[in-house]
Amino acid sequence: MRLERRRYGSHPVRLAGEPPMNDWDDDLPFGLPFTLEEYEQRIARTKAAMAEAGIDLLMVTSPENIYWLTGYRTTGYYVYQIFLLPLDGTPQFVTSKLEHECVRALSWIKTGLTVFMGEDEVAKTLEGFDATEARIERIGYEERGFWLPPRILDAVRGRWGNTATVAAGHVLEDLRRIKSPAEISCLREAARIASVGMRAGLQAVAPGRTENEVAGDVYQALMAEGGEHPAGGPYVVTGPRAAITHMLPERAVIEPGHAVYFEVGGCYKRYSGSNMRMAHVGPPGNEAAHRAATSIEALDAMLETIKPGATSQDIDRAGRSVMARGGTTEEFRHRAGYSMGVAFAPGWGEGLVNDIAEGNERPLEPGMAFHLVPMAGFRGEGNMGFSETVLVSTDGCEVLTDVPRELHIVSAG
Amino acid sequence: MRLERRRYGSHPVRLAGEPPMNDWDDDLPFGLPFTLEEYEQRIARTKAAMAEAGIDLLMVTSPENIYWLTGYRTTGYYVYQIFLLPLDGTPQFVTSKLEHECVRALSWIKTGLTVFMGEDEVAKTLEGFDATEARIERIGYEERGFWLPPRILDAVRGRWGNTATVAAGHVLEDLRRIKSPAEISCLREAARIASVGMRAGLQAVAPGRTENEVAGDVYQALMAEGGEHPAGGPYVVTGPRAAITHMLPERAVIEPGHAVYFEVGGCYKRYSGSNMRMAHVGPPGNEAAHRAATSIEALDAMLETIKPGATSQDIDRAGRSVMARGGTTEEFRHRAGYSMGVAFAPGWGEGLVNDIAEGNERPLEPGMAFHLVPMAGFRGEGNMGFSETVLVSTDGCEVLTDVPRELHIVSAG
Repeated sequence: MRLERRRYGSHPVRLAGEPPMNDWDDDLPFGLPFTLEEYEQRIARTKAAMAEAGIDLLMVTSPENIYWLTGYRTTGYYVYQIFLLPLDGTPQFVTSKLEHECVRALSWIKTGLTVFMGEDEVAKTLEGFDATEARIERIGYEERGFWLPPRILDAVRGRWGNTATVAAGHVLEDLRRIKSPAEISCLREAARIASVGMRAGLQAVAPGRTENEVAGDVYQALMAEGGEHPAGGPYVVTGPRAAITHMLPERAVIEPGHAVYFEVGGCYKRYSGSNMRMAHVGPPGNEAAHRAATSIEALDAMLETIKPGATSQDIDRAGRSVMARGGTTEEFRHRAGYSMGVAFAPGWGEGLVNDIAEGNERPLEPGMAFHLVPMAGFRGEGNMGFSETVLVSTDGCEVLTDVPRELHIVSAG
Repeated sequence: MRLERRRYGSHPVRLAGEPPMNDWDDDLPFGLPFTLEEYEQRIARTKAAMAEAGIDLLMVTSPENIYWLTGYRTTGYYVYQIFLLPLDGTPQFVTSKLEHECVRALSWIKTGLTVFMGEDEVAKTLEGFDATEARIERIGYEERGFWLPPRILDAVRGRWGNTATVAAGHVLEDLRRIKSPAEISCLREAARIASVGMRAGLQAVAPGRTENEVAGDVYQALMAEGGEHPAGGPYVVTGPRAAITHMLPERAVIEPGHAVYFEVGGCYKRYSGSNMRMAHVGPPGNEAAHRAATSIEALDAMLETIKPGATSQDIDRAGRSVMARGGTTEEFRHRAGYSMGVAFAPGWGEGLVNDIAEGNERPLEPGMAFHLVPMAGFRGEGNMGFSETVLVSTDGCEVLTDVPRELHIVSAG
């Protein structure tokens, strides 16, 4: 498929650190994240995978998959949208009328239908199927994803039959697993931004401050560095509350003796890098110091194990065995890592794409990226975890985040 | 249903502006947002609505509905979770093992099943159904929502039959529409925080700064004021880019002559208040001034029309007719407002709960809350919009956000 060039409006816009808009190729879409050639390759590979799986038309519903295929991004994905990619035919994007300018300005998409107040998004979706002018016998959909409302899938099955729809999440998950050079550049920048945010956060810790105040400083640093609104966090959680996984700041006050948990993601062109670090207010006791050393040792063990050919499960085991030797078993209650790449809120991980976990025997390949997270929560006490975002290289891995891997001690006075 | 009291861990945690944890009722759950009595009432009303609709068991999957019913919150809703509420029987929560502490510490839920790496979440869900020990003939699900993966609904239908599952999104949407006094307190605080963030943003505008730098200042102000990570934004978009709806900061530089679009949401106990304002770098031309005056006049017209008994459609028409008189028709391409209440990313609106829109003839009632958004995008030029978060009162409405309703002029020098 050859994509056509075009531009948005007639006014120049200057983006920091990039040439002004009017120096660009005038015919490029206004805000396409990568070259048209990059998208042409992605579409060609997607169609090859569809043909392989015997799928005539792919219903693409997750914001990450839509962005990866088209460049289109919006915060409006709380409203129903669907990208219909036929093997042979015209792609159609069905979305809210409000998003029309967004589609036009940010992606290569030129064909679709919009839904206005009171209009029926189910009927519009079926119209979209017709507008592809494709032969439609087998329809792929994202069976594990969240973004396909039941009534839409029911309507598609009502028209083409229950057996016409096939689970096809794997088509795009498989393709997104290994990053292109252009994607790797974004991951590097996202990880750099995440590291700047983390350093700002560690510096901002002081007894008497709230989690929220410190998180505000982190976010400001992320954005001042050129970061975008991150897909999650920043997480800043102090003392015993930090044992509650996936807690965001809720006005708790940092006290002497607290360990303060940080997990900070940076975002660039919707690609994410992330890192975890810990601050301690006053000198840590023996147990906190031991737990910190254990997490760091587990992280080191995983970094040493990563190389092409090792399996995801190998990496999980390398970290988990160190944690267990350090006395942490039941408290380390999650996968040891997950794929990093394109992400929209609420999470920056590509969990459906790849996990570092027991049972995943997929071999690592150069160009895969992961967030490694040997973190443990201790009920009533707090948690302890250090993490890095890494890129699998030809003979090992490269750590993309860059903050000293140590417990950051803050004066309790 | 009587809920049991209990507490989390043994360590006191001090929350800013609230009494220290160890002064609270020791048996309260650690981080329950409201009193147990509030939740008992919500559950009783939900069960009454289920009985009315002939539903034996409700599959609750959206993070907002789960939070509203149980107090449970996590950023981990990118992983599958489901709360099963039987009419008669034991509620069950099925979630990732990682979330176990979160459930225990933040909600009244005591019964459920966790899914660990490699375990089958479909099978665990069906186990959860069994664990309710309820009679299960008619099962309600959220047909318009995003959070029920197709393979879960397929498995439920596979076991109980296609006709056993019934569209039931309305059960909780109806109940969430009118806010309790405790919820209204949270909306007030969220709107106050949003206003502080907006003032900080308007003050931070200067030519040469990037959208991202200004958004960083907004976020810092929101958090320093005690706000939580907002469900969306902050939106800061400058010049022609602002015509692209739902655009977040992407490093564009603020230039003399730009109108800068702000939409800032505050968050308190996951309740949201929001407001839109505009800054202009240098004196606005006649057209920008006219567009600003039109949006403000439309907002005023809506505020004057709101009262119990008026319909949502009446309010939309009041705003839309002013916009049309001002020359803005096609550019105002969305509903004129939406319900505000509980929200998790990606959006702070309760779109499924209630809209201010043509075709919605539902009468307004005291305790409803809305974000009124007469905003328009002008291709290649930018946008213009002013908004407020309001509460329907017994004889009109109360505006909860509090920033001067005017175009904020910034020196271009």
